[in-house]
Amino acid sequence: MQDALLALTRYWTDRGCIVVQPYNTEVGAGTLNPATVLRVLGPEPWRVSYVEPSVRPDDARYGENPNRLQTHTQFQVILKPDPGDPQELYLGSLEALGIDVRAHDVRFVEDNWASPALGAWGLGWEVWLDGLEITQFTYFQQAGGMSLDPVSVEITYGIERIMMALQGVDHFKDIAYAPGISYGEAFGQAEYEMSRYYLDDADVEATKRMFEEYAAEARRMLDARLPVPAHNYVLKCSHAFNVLDARGAISTTERARAFGRMRGLAREVAQLWAARREELGHPLGLAEAPAPAVLPEAFAEVTGSNTLLFEIGVEELPPHEVTRTVEAVAKAVTEKLGATRLAHGDVEVHGTPRRVVVLVPGVAAREPDAEKTVRGPRVSAAFDADGNPTKAAQGFARGQGVDVSELGRVTENGVEHVALARTDPGRGAVEVLSGLLGEVVAELRAEKNMKWNDPKLSFTRPIRWLLALLGTTPVPVAVSSLAAEPRTRVHRTADTPVVEVSTADGYPEFLAGHGIDVSADARRAAIVARAEELAASVGGVVDFDGVLDEVTNLVERPTPILGSFEERYLELPAQILTTVMRKHQRYLPVRAADGSLLPHFVAVANGEVDEDLVRAGNEGVLRARYEDAAFFWRADLRTPLADMKSGLAKLTFADKLGSMADRAARIAVLAGRLAEEVGAADGTLARAGELAKFDLGSQMVIELSSLAGVMAREYAERAGETPEVAAALFEMELPRSAGDALPSSTPGALLSLADRFDLLAGLFGIGANPTGSSDPFGLRRAALGAVSVLRAFPELKGITLPKALALAARGVAEQGPELSAESLEVAREFAVRRYEQQLLDAGHDHRFVNAVLPLADAPAVADTTLAELTSLAGDPDFAALVAALQRVRRIVPADTAGEYDPQVLTEPAEVALHEALVEVPAGVTGLAAFAAAASGLTAPVNTFFDEVLVMAEDERVKRARLGLLAAIRDLAAPVLDWQALGTALG
Amino acid sequence: MQDALLALTRYWTDRGCIVVQPYNTEVGAGTLNPATVLRVLGPEPWRVSYVEPSVRPDDARYGENPNRLQTHTQFQVILKPDPGDPQELYLGSLEALGIDVRAHDVRFVEDNWASPALGAWGLGWEVWLDGLEITQFTYFQQAGGMSLDPVSVEITYGIERIMMALQGVDHFKDIAYAPGISYGEAFGQAEYEMSRYYLDDADVEATKRMFEEYAAEARRMLDARLPVPAHNYVLKCSHAFNVLDARGAISTTERARAFGRMRGLAREVAQLWAARREELGHPLGLAEAPAPAVLPEAFAEVTGSNTLLFEIGVEELPPHEVTRTVEAVAKAVTEKLGATRLAHGDVEVHGTPRRVVVLVPGVAAREPDAEKTVRGPRVSAAFDADGNPTKAAQGFARGQGVDVSELGRVTENGVEHVALARTDPGRGAVEVLSGLLGEVVAELRAEKNMKWNDPKLSFTRPIRWLLALLGTTPVPVAVSSLAAEPRTRVHRTADTPVVEVSTADGYPEFLAGHGIDVSADARRAAIVARAEELAASVGGVVDFDGVLDEVTNLVERPTPILGSFEERYLELPAQILTTVMRKHQRYLPVRAADGSLLPHFVAVANGEVDEDLVRAGNEGVLRARYEDAAFFWRADLRTPLADMKSGLAKLTFADKLGSMADRAARIAVLAGRLAEEVGAADGTLARAGELAKFDLGSQMVIELSSLAGVMAREYAERAGETPEVAAALFEMELPRSAGDALPSSTPGALLSLADRFDLLAGLFGIGANPTGSSDPFGLRRAALGAVSVLRAFPELKGITLPKALALAARGVAEQGPELSAESLEVAREFAVRRYEQQLLDAGHDHRFVNAVLPLADAPAVADTTLAELTSLAGDPDFAALVAALQRVRRIVPADTAGEYDPQVLTEPAEVALHEALVEVPAGVTGLAAFAAAASGLTAPVNTFFDEVLVMAEDERVKRARLGLLAAIRDLAAPVLDWQALGTALG
Repeated sequence: MQDALLALTRYWTDRGCIVVQPYNTEVGAGTLNPATVLRVLGPEPWRVSYVEPSVRPDDARYGENPNRLQTHTQFQVILKPDPGDPQELYLGSLEALGIDVRAHDVRFVEDNWASPALGAWGLGWEVWLDGLEITQFTYFQQAGGMSLDPVSVEITYGIERIMMALQGVDHFKDIAYAPGISYGEAFGQAEYEMSRYYLDDADVEATKRMFEEYAAEARRMLDARLPVPAHNYVLKCSHAFNVLDARGAISTTERARAFGRMRGLAREVAQLWAARREELGHPLGLAEAPAPAVLPEAFAEVTGSNTLLFEIGVEELPPHEVTRTVEAVAKAVTEKLGATRLAHGDVEVHGTPRRVVVLVPGVAAREPDAEKTVRGPRVSAAFDADGNPTKAAQGFARGQGVDVSELGRVTENGVEHVALARTDPGRGAVEVLSGLLGEVVAELRAEKNMKWNDPKLSFTRPIRWLLALLGTTPVPVAVSSLAAEPRTRVHRTADTPVVEVSTADGYPEFLAGHGIDVSADARRAAIVARAEELAASVGGVVDFDGVLDEVTNLVERPTPILGSFEERYLELPAQILTTVMRKHQRYLPVRAADGSLLPHFVAVANGEVDEDLVRAGNEGVLRARYEDAAFFWRADLRTPLADMKSGLAKLTFADKLGSMADRAARIAVLAGRLAEEVGAADGTLARAGELAKFDLGSQMVIELSSLAGVMAREYAERAGETPEVAAALFEMELPRSAGDALPSSTPGALLSLADRFDLLAGLFGIGANPTGSSDPFGLRRAALGAVSVLRAFPELKGITLPKALALAARGVAEQGPELSAESLEVAREFAVRRYEQQLLDAGHDHRFVNAVLPLADAPAVADTTLAELTSLAGDPDFAALVAALQRVRRIVPADTAGEYDPQVLTEPAEVALHEALVEVPAGVTGLAAFAAAASGLTAPVNTFFDEVLVMAEDERVKRARLGLLAAIRDLAAPVLDWQALGTALG
Repeated sequence: MQDALLALTRYWTDRGCIVVQPYNTEVGAGTLNPATVLRVLGPEPWRVSYVEPSVRPDDARYGENPNRLQTHTQFQVILKPDPGDPQELYLGSLEALGIDVRAHDVRFVEDNWASPALGAWGLGWEVWLDGLEITQFTYFQQAGGMSLDPVSVEITYGIERIMMALQGVDHFKDIAYAPGISYGEAFGQAEYEMSRYYLDDADVEATKRMFEEYAAEARRMLDARLPVPAHNYVLKCSHAFNVLDARGAISTTERARAFGRMRGLAREVAQLWAARREELGHPLGLAEAPAPAVLPEAFAEVTGSNTLLFEIGVEELPPHEVTRTVEAVAKAVTEKLGATRLAHGDVEVHGTPRRVVVLVPGVAAREPDAEKTVRGPRVSAAFDADGNPTKAAQGFARGQGVDVSELGRVTENGVEHVALARTDPGRGAVEVLSGLLGEVVAELRAEKNMKWNDPKLSFTRPIRWLLALLGTTPVPVAVSSLAAEPRTRVHRTADTPVVEVSTADGYPEFLAGHGIDVSADARRAAIVARAEELAASVGGVVDFDGVLDEVTNLVERPTPILGSFEERYLELPAQILTTVMRKHQRYLPVRAADGSLLPHFVAVANGEVDEDLVRAGNEGVLRARYEDAAFFWRADLRTPLADMKSGLAKLTFADKLGSMADRAARIAVLAGRLAEEVGAADGTLARAGELAKFDLGSQMVIELSSLAGVMAREYAERAGETPEVAAALFEMELPRSAGDALPSSTPGALLSLADRFDLLAGLFGIGANPTGSSDPFGLRRAALGAVSVLRAFPELKGITLPKALALAARGVAEQGPELSAESLEVAREFAVRRYEQQLLDAGHDHRFVNAVLPLADAPAVADTTLAELTSLAGDPDFAALVAALQRVRRIVPADTAGEYDPQVLTEPAEVALHEALVEVPAGVTGLAAFAAAASGLTAPVNTFFDEVLVMAEDERVKRARLGLLAAIRDLAAPVLDWQALGTALG
């Protein structure tokens, strides 16, 4: 291993990197060394490489976990500015490590990086070696809240991982560290002891005090304008925080507060550093940007009709961006070509992770000429009284480069102007395409965009080359620093990674010859076919669910490889196995005919590889992950549910809101109270309440938190709980995100609601409201979830938002703090806003939505009304009724009570209206029912207004008439918000 | 520079070292990394190398000092066990760095290392490259208070220094760190900012709190038996302490307390680590010791008379040990040879730093045989009544291997025994020498001894080879793992560093042929001759004062080289220049005829070197040191004395005793009061008191504390103070050590006394007494100094110890704490003990010393008495007087008052004695005067005892006689302690 570190050091110093030492205070990652986090700021160039033992107390495992260490070794490289070929340089470094990149499957898989604590983010990849993540590769975009210019490339190698793969060992302790000495022999004791310290023995109160001391020193050093010592203390803060976190001593509120402080300090450090460097006159000079590309003076002319080939070469796009970019480029090229006069065939666009290929057959050699009339000054101004051309006319003629005598006339809007008929000559196809294609590139945008060494372009990943041919003629394209050239790049591991392209025709076949399938459909089909073939060879079928599209766009030519894992892992719940396969590894599971998992998977490699080598690598990665999971699974199965649950007392939840055990207890009580409201209390709910959230105390969920609920169900069933209780525990966690499944049982729904209302009442109650984009407690998701469950369970409509929040507040108050009514109202309003947004997102008319919002305290009721409103919207009778009601509402002052003495009414129309009103049955609920019941009012109302003067002179009469109308208004009022509805039906 | 680090890493990994990373918390030296300080403990082998950026807040200089940095780069190597040839390996590493060790003067100069805070020490060298210290090389002997077995070799390279020398740059910032980037560009800002932090901006109170937190965590981790995190926190403690120290916030008492705590923790960490490794079963195995050497079955025989050559080859001895060892070996060989029967000539022994050579001409080939008689049982017991041999006789004969009939007879003390006459055969010379020489080696000891890889031997530096030849015959010698071989080692840089030796004859010439002068006298003479020649070439003479002997024993063949420095440095006081030359560099100053310094020096290189290269190197080192000094000198000259003095307020002195400014004020007051006691107050003293210690605020003294007082004189003179004031300020610091000069002026003496009594009264007063070997405040030195000054200034005898301490205590109390009378008595007694020790060390009879000790409160008085006592000791009259007085003292009970009624005395003898007593003049002081005055008492006393019965029956008479004798006793009592004197004169 030490040879590997030396080899990397040598490789990068040979490429101009200076070497610095690991930092002399604990850092969580090489990024935090000032050689990265400060040096990436500002305009100075910087190339550095160093080893960084990175301390992550949370990863402490006493040295027992084969893959996880409290201190792991990073090798860090910063290239500033981006040298233009950092991926190729990186692959060279793998070769320097002795890795045959031609035989292995090395992949750049989207992985973006953000450190809110540093105000930093970047886009990039994790690099996979046969499925094993060995490196983080990031284009640093921001640090300390400042945009970076130039952008730095950050390459972070995970050395232990790489060594385990290279040496074929299963545990970090078995890595040969130096001749005759293993990693475990060299560092095992420290790993154990520091794990003990971080997990069990660090003094929480002392560490909190240290955090405060560090933060105060950082603050003082900022005030003294000394960014280096200030940064030191930010790092010490961060480490102290990490120690507290590993000790389980940080509540969610404390976390948010600590992060806020550290972020603020880190930003100030960065800004101060940048300012100080500027004051020092940028001692290392200024980084140079690549020169702009230039177009030729003249464009080539072609003849006949030709195929256009335009390729935009990029570094590995995120899979979903492949599809998006293909569509966007197709649209742009089509529109832009349509705006020219160049005849052409249909635009065809394909994409792979590394290229977008545009093919347009039948492109004419030139645009035809076009005639056009250029309008000059009015005739009245163009000639003087003597008919001689004025200066205006002369100027116009001169501007057009003709003699005044050549001007003609044209009449526009009845006014006669001098004019000139001109021929607009068609441009050559090369010229037209040159500009057009340049625009396409310059205008490319993705969801998340980044900068690289190009001074102007911006896209989701760097654009590295352009290829443009019209038939066999190169089309010059110059965009910022990029110039099109008649060549493309094929696999980086090819003997000739850059190949000349002589003609546009047959380009897909040309690429296929170089091992690249440009069509996503073809790649997908190839994966399906080959994967099915492989699965069939072991008597199974492939489960393509979820990752097929992603895998298709992770390769330029798919090489599905069948891998296996030990059958014993099948003892694990299938959801664990498939979660790991899909989410972590992008493998396709293989199932038996009955749907059960087989101990196989299909991994999809890129291009030609040594399949045995790649299979073995991927199997090793999966084995390590499953071994982890199996370890937890077995440990958890040995643990009684009550013991897991008791672990919740150690998990701090939030300031003033106690531990996770306190929260679970509140949820159980609240679920019971909600059930009483709707008469749904039963034994299942009671038992599930007792067990609520116990799986947060399981090792599996501590490791893989996305399995919360899933593991509750599994462990509960195996512990002999009823299927209903197990299901309720699972459903309690639903929905986990927007669009996720909802509970299907009433106990599950009640627990889900209790969970979410406890969160909402409690956190709004203590003032931890979400702000801007910051929602550390997931209150938006909780509110959406609660509303979704209420909408899905109309039978629970008795549980309104205010009632649920009040009951939740009662539960909190029973444990401690009284929550204010105002805070509950804010929470209620917050939930209503989420509901409103759901409706709008679903495409409902915003006026309809507004009309039913007063009912949103019971979202199911509002839903029904909205549905009825929508279905009634086309009904003329209903429209008439609404119009009549709106007439009524407009005339009646808000403070008029709906009471009147019928005896006073004497006019036939008003008597008729009174009688019609009496006919409407009382207590009708629901819009449709109301519309039906009140339909008899429409005509009498209209007649009333036609024949009766409401504002009678006789005050008594006037009051009775207004009272009559107000009674109608009040009858309609509970049904929906007529004001908001307005003239939506008009 | 980074290439150098990589080259070293590569070199040492090729030699089996593992590489670890710098530690991830601040350490002051690579030694503190657990890869050294913990791994050197216990029996496991360990070879490691690493870079360690070492943080020393105290060395922070804002990046301005060319040689000093708050973070400097160490390269650290640990070889455990000692590989047997670590110096040779080290020289190889210099070659790997591109240093031509044949051209340069590379030297191993004694430098021992101890870290009380770590309970650690070792012996070794600083390695000089042309006079520049580039490496610390240490055989680690103890750590954490535990003796190390096996011993580790620690090699610590100072990388910035080496780079500056290799690259020929004058400032660390100018080191080429990497291609195109200088050290200053890479690290300059951090150097400045961290200097600011450490020197100016670190929050003292916060850092103190951190220290406490760290110490508490270390304590807790020890209790949890986790040495690694405990060590982490000890390091953090240590760094926090260093920060406080750099901020000037640590008083001497705080320093002692903090060191005590850290030392205690570090020891526990070490012990716990060792225990834990043992519990873990020593995962790295056990280091193997070299096998013992074995002697042959039989020894060769020689003929005729031969010369013995015996060489003990060592690694570089400390210079004074060369002389010592030569003497010790000469004595041992002489004695041991004398105890044999081997005829031989005179023993001649020579020494160089690397060898002790014994030459003995005329060694006989064998010991002569010797006759001896073995005595058996008495004849009476040997034969029974019948004259037959008894069992006793038979047993004796059997034991001697002869028949009973062969026994003869011998008469001893008049008793006849059976006996056997035997011949004790002489052994061959080779056999005799083999054993004898082995003993010499095994018994070698120095003042400080160490262990290396040999399992049994112990000496001041490792013994690496033995050469023993008798004429041309190898003498086998086997001592522990060492076996003599007929070869020696010459210069390590020779083409053949190990050469065969075929004969003992002419060995000095043989060595001379290999560039080694074995005779110290010859080397000294060569240095003197050549140095004088060189000095004469620039018109000067060499000042050999001080370092000639040392230099003689620093080389095996001296190569004096004349170097120069810029004349402008001559503006500095000569004492600064010579201090640097002698103390730091062991250069010989060159003076003009008038004694003034010339801008030249003579450095003495070892053996053949590239003289120009070595000259340039040495000149560069001196230039850097002088540049430093000149910088401080100029800065100080610009600073008014009062400004320097005001800086003392920032220097904490000791808990409760205020700042150094407070102390200086107390000294001034105390000096005045002492002067009043003896009527010696004057303007010089007053002014010098005002300025007392001002130079502690000068940059020069802050850097070179040994110049305190020297600089006071220089700066005072230049600021226009009188020569007397300047001298007094200088003398105030005298004596600086035992044997140093004493003040010559009364104001100087008074200030010196005030300084020391303030220290003694204050620190004993606050309970900071010295304990065991620990005397952090230098109280022993202070007491010795005070006593020495009082002895040198008899005119100040009015200043007694109790009076001076009481006045000092008054000064302390005026500023704050009252000091107890008990503490002052302890201080007085402490000073008396020092005085006693001085007298005993000077060879005075301990009874005489005891006799004058009661006078020691005024040491000058005691001195006089002692001198008188010594000179009177041979005088029979005095002896008689003493005898008479002792008779008197023996008979008089202690409680008898010296009063009597002369009227009661009637016997002639008692009357005569009374009259003789009356004749003795009252108020005689001093022993000699007393002896003269009281001489008339001798005879009457003796007559009195002969003729008078003291214990008369008449009580009145008895009382008068006892009163008379008591009066004589009391007359003598103040003169000296007659009890202690006892029979010293008898």
